[in-house]
Amino acid sequence: MLRLDELRLLDALDELAGIGAIEGGGCARLALTDDDRIGRDVRIDAIGNVIGLRAGAENLPPVMTGSHIDTVRTGGRYDGNYGVLAGLEVVRALNDAKATTRRPIAVAFFTNEEGARFQPDMLGSLVYAGGLGLNEAYAAADKDGRSVGDELRRIGYLGSARPGALRPHAFVELHIEQGPILDEEKVQIGVVESVQGISWTEYTVTGVSNHAGTTPMRLRHDAGYLAAAVNVFARKLAWEMGGHQVATVGSLSLRPNLINVVPNHATFTVDLRNTDEAKLKEAEARVAAHIAEVAKEERVEVEAKVLARFEPVIFDATLVDRVEHHAQALSLSTRRMPSGAGHDAQMMQRICPTAMIFVPSIAGLSHNVKEHTEAADLAAGAQVLLNLMVELAEGA
Amino acid sequence: MLRLDELRLLDALDELAGIGAIEGGGCARLALTDDDRIGRDVRIDAIGNVIGLRAGAENLPPVMTGSHIDTVRTGGRYDGNYGVLAGLEVVRALNDAKATTRRPIAVAFFTNEEGARFQPDMLGSLVYAGGLGLNEAYAAADKDGRSVGDELRRIGYLGSARPGALRPHAFVELHIEQGPILDEEKVQIGVVESVQGISWTEYTVTGVSNHAGTTPMRLRHDAGYLAAAVNVFARKLAWEMGGHQVATVGSLSLRPNLINVVPNHATFTVDLRNTDEAKLKEAEARVAAHIAEVAKEERVEVEAKVLARFEPVIFDATLVDRVEHHAQALSLSTRRMPSGAGHDAQMMQRICPTAMIFVPSIAGLSHNVKEHTEAADLAAGAQVLLNLMVELAEGA
Repeated sequence: MLRLDELRLLDALDELAGIGAIEGGGCARLALTDDDRIGRDVRIDAIGNVIGLRAGAENLPPVMTGSHIDTVRTGGRYDGNYGVLAGLEVVRALNDAKATTRRPIAVAFFTNEEGARFQPDMLGSLVYAGGLGLNEAYAAADKDGRSVGDELRRIGYLGSARPGALRPHAFVELHIEQGPILDEEKVQIGVVESVQGISWTEYTVTGVSNHAGTTPMRLRHDAGYLAAAVNVFARKLAWEMGGHQVATVGSLSLRPNLINVVPNHATFTVDLRNTDEAKLKEAEARVAAHIAEVAKEERVEVEAKVLARFEPVIFDATLVDRVEHHAQALSLSTRRMPSGAGHDAQMMQRICPTAMIFVPSIAGLSHNVKEHTEAADLAAGAQVLLNLMVELAEGA
Repeated sequence: MLRLDELRLLDALDELAGIGAIEGGGCARLALTDDDRIGRDVRIDAIGNVIGLRAGAENLPPVMTGSHIDTVRTGGRYDGNYGVLAGLEVVRALNDAKATTRRPIAVAFFTNEEGARFQPDMLGSLVYAGGLGLNEAYAAADKDGRSVGDELRRIGYLGSARPGALRPHAFVELHIEQGPILDEEKVQIGVVESVQGISWTEYTVTGVSNHAGTTPMRLRHDAGYLAAAVNVFARKLAWEMGGHQVATVGSLSLRPNLINVVPNHATFTVDLRNTDEAKLKEAEARVAAHIAEVAKEERVEVEAKVLARFEPVIFDATLVDRVEHHAQALSLSTRRMPSGAGHDAQMMQRICPTAMIFVPSIAGLSHNVKEHTEAADLAAGAQVLLNLMVELAEGA
């Protein structure tokens, strides 16, 4: 069996974590900023996805692995980076062994996976899989009005390759869990069967600003109250629905945002996720109905803007079995699970058999500078990836 | 009867509204900014209160009127300005008539009434009435860390007079209602009997930031959720308590404030008011108990900081009767009422008999650029003030 070089992988993770490093050991490497550019290098497509290719003995579609290197504003060291650098380590291990595989091996990283700067998230892989046109993707703008197209040009990553031109034989993504389950259950490898559907909506509420002391409660049109009511409702809804339903109000701002003025303006986001599309639709409908009800009572106007919407994704059953097989063959404990987070792999499943491998996140912390995975777990996940990639590259 | 010059008063209101004018016809003249300085002029005390004095026939304590000229960030044209400029118009009417009063007439405006920039609000009149020491007042800092002391010095309004040195015989404040009651009931003059007690608290919540997709609801420590729960609870509490109880969450900010990250930090304010001190205390206690309960469930830390706390104030009954008398003598309709907003008059009641005169605010809009009062109502209120001031200045 080919062995990967664990120290080389950890060094590479350290090096990439140093770009856009923030206090507490985390990363802020928002998509298409200069820090994102420095982290890059190889064949670049028109949405800035970067793909390295190691030739195979035959001219067949490659077996691809990869992830992303952009981070949220308060990101950790391993989210995304790990899958990309472990992919490169697979190539290095093959090179060190002077091994030739039947199929080529490709290692990719995709643009703007996080969606912290541009919406929708998983933009690069979505375009790669043919789910979004280039012009629409280029037009996506950040909060300061800078567009994906302009920023790709500015950092020099508007490549010439057509996204999706290289259609993989299979795609495997290695990632930290970003949740607490593997750590809580002391399981080493998560065998990812599916990805939760994601629904992101931004609401803009317009009420009337008024004096907080003199305006009777019955005469208020409080934009902030609606935002608060939705947050409380979303929490209750997630508990009621149970299962894999989660709901989050992560972003909220009020105007004029003064102690003694009833807010006339609120902007807030609702993030809903479920592994079951019907249930996700139910959650969306119930949140929308609640908003309509509160808006009517409070006599405020609400505009909704869908920032991202992806159905749940079921990974390729055969490939999922092989993830489990290779983990168990290494005497690693496994657990089948859905992914709560969105991943580039869910887009790749549209164009080729895809699966994911998870390793534990200590205390489930992620999108947090304290995100951590033990070195032994990082090495174990990468070894599973290596063994599976070799099998796929040699197979029929 | 002395008649005031209505057009001169309206011109003065226009002129002052032009300083720090903002879109929509309102004002942003935060306390101790350059715009606030331009609006000023006369004898200045050590907290920047400005007092103009018109000599009387005898060397007796003056009859004082006045208000403030600072505004909130989205202020209207009349809040504060009206009382100050009507006071000056009283002096001009006396001058035009070459009339001499027994007692001197004083017109004051007080520093930082709004509390939009520095807390506590009504800072200048509070210091004037001996309720706050100068050093404590000087140390109050805005969000950028600039202090009242430094800003008074910078705009040249750190005066030499001792605040409160001039102890009035009586104080009368003319103000727009800032609420909807007079407008709704088509009443011309509000006879203000009391001012609601005010309780302002800022809460800082510390939770744990985490991935919005992968973190099960049961494992969240969502700082933003607590803020939302308190907003919803405060609304319910105000409805339940009824009467004059109001509750507002006007200011709120989340960190990291991203769609897909559970907020680990929230700062928000709660503004509670009631005309009844016991009920105000009950509201404070119930909000505090609810916060403790949610903090325990959500396992977040909450720090509370009292930004302002004033008990309800009952104005001088005899003087209140005289407000009503003079309004009715002018054939104006009247209504006795409490003030929902805090006013400098409530501080002056600590050191001399005090009352207030309200005029209608269209639709109750205030702290809003659309704040408006009809010219006829502005003139009527000023005439009531003039007649009452003359009576007080001539009386025993």
